[in-house]
Amino acid sequence: MDDLLKTALRQIQQEIDAAFDVIIPVPQDTRAKLVQAMRYAVIGGGKRLRPLLLCATADIHGVDRSASVRAGAALEAIHVYSLVHDDLPCMDDDELRHGKPTVHRAFDEATAVLAGDALNDLAFEILSDPATSGDPFTRIELVRTLALASGHHGMAGGQMMDLVAENETFDLPTITRLQQLKTGALLGAAVEMGAILGRVPPEGRTHLRGYARDIGLAFQIADDLIDHEGDAEAAGKAVGKDAAAGKQTFVSLLGAERARAQAQMLVEQAIEYLQHYGSEADLLRAVARFIVERDR
Amino acid sequence: MDDLLKTALRQIQQEIDAAFDVIIPVPQDTRAKLVQAMRYAVIGGGKRLRPLLLCATADIHGVDRSASVRAGAALEAIHVYSLVHDDLPCMDDDELRHGKPTVHRAFDEATAVLAGDALNDLAFEILSDPATSGDPFTRIELVRTLALASGHHGMAGGQMMDLVAENETFDLPTITRLQQLKTGALLGAAVEMGAILGRVPPEGRTHLRGYARDIGLAFQIADDLIDHEGDAEAAGKAVGKDAAAGKQTFVSLLGAERARAQAQMLVEQAIEYLQHYGSEADLLRAVARFIVERDR
Repeated sequence: MDDLLKTALRQIQQEIDAAFDVIIPVPQDTRAKLVQAMRYAVIGGGKRLRPLLLCATADIHGVDRSASVRAGAALEAIHVYSLVHDDLPCMDDDELRHGKPTVHRAFDEATAVLAGDALNDLAFEILSDPATSGDPFTRIELVRTLALASGHHGMAGGQMMDLVAENETFDLPTITRLQQLKTGALLGAAVEMGAILGRVPPEGRTHLRGYARDIGLAFQIADDLIDHEGDAEAAGKAVGKDAAAGKQTFVSLLGAERARAQAQMLVEQAIEYLQHYGSEADLLRAVARFIVERDR
Repeated sequence: MDDLLKTALRQIQQEIDAAFDVIIPVPQDTRAKLVQAMRYAVIGGGKRLRPLLLCATADIHGVDRSASVRAGAALEAIHVYSLVHDDLPCMDDDELRHGKPTVHRAFDEATAVLAGDALNDLAFEILSDPATSGDPFTRIELVRTLALASGHHGMAGGQMMDLVAENETFDLPTITRLQQLKTGALLGAAVEMGAILGRVPPEGRTHLRGYARDIGLAFQIADDLIDHEGDAEAAGKAVGKDAAAGKQTFVSLLGAERARAQAQMLVEQAIEYLQHYGSEADLLRAVARFIVERDR
């Protein structure tokens, strides 16, 4: 990992932790357990790749950092709620997340359901707050982008396809679509939200969207490679589960070697989308390269 | 129930069903099951009391009906997602809702979790859509009001208190606070959102807020009375569960007679808040009266 990215990751991790620490203080009443569970889920874990992408895109366009960190926290709240619910016994039934017990293990199932729900709502509370942007049009564009990326048109739709994948055999186009929704939608929203904060008009976002689409797919292929080859300690979660569940993945469909080559190609293509940017986009380029190097 | 209310309920039930039918068509791909579960949960059930309150308030202020119905559908999506998750085995473990099997019984638990999540996001997708209001400031105010009413500051916070109530003995002020969050927050949001659509400035909403607060509390007391006295068929769900769970309710704390008198007093107080409105607020008055008559 290059120094630029290493520094940026360390910075965003601190910024997102600090933002959540301020945004959701533990209340002095019987709601305390809910907020403790929310804080347990969102503070001190995860690479913060989505906020990093959002802030890196916003930085290119001169956005005030406190605004982009708030929007990044909203995006991360959605990502984390989906992990909390995904880890539930009725879903993936995972015991570990980021190397610590999952929310329903550390607390209980009912609290995990509620904490996920409350994090989902928190995302829209953060984005609709004038502290995120003084401009109502910017705020509502952020809300719309995140809502569309999260619900049945996006992430939740992809998760449903993933559940169905346990009982059906999907071909490569269907797996690609599944992953574009399940993982790609939020990664795309990260870049889009950075551009919205930067007041880049929709027609000026084409290249950024191309970049996001390609790294989103590369990310998922790399994830499948980690699941296929990696060790649980490095991943911070259980591995080899897809194969055990009989699910098709990019690796099962393409083989590890072709999957790796495909991810590499997507990353190069993503970087090409940034060709009309100068050194100000070096962090986005570094993120793209990092995505396929994660599993080494 | 008076004719004005009867007609208004029938109308809003049709309007909300029709709105959801248009907003979430079943997609022709493997996300279909998710959207089917969402539609199963939100179409053809429930009194639609929250959309009714929203639209009745908006009607007073001359709001285009298609706009208020959309906002009402968003509000109802939040209410219904909370029911879907509340019914889960790890929460209340209910088998029936509105007289039909709960979502996790009709589909499965994982689908119920996802459908609830997607309905939560759908609410913000609907509100952020220019079809709900051409004015970005109105849209973001709607989003902010609903997000605050739904998350840990509101409904989800109240649900957490409700979970804690199974193991702790709450006094009357704590039960009141619990219910103000769990049920009152969304009922308050209904009236607030109607006023936002009607461009009533915040300082002009004081009386409407007083009305909403009082009917919210009256509603919950009436609910406790139904749970205490009612039969499952009329309620469309299991009854007598609070007592079985050893939970304090308004009825256990006040006794049925005083609880009923308290609800009646709140309804009269709520109607008094509407005194500077003329006959255009008759529907809101009818809703207030209906709330304590539900259990008869």
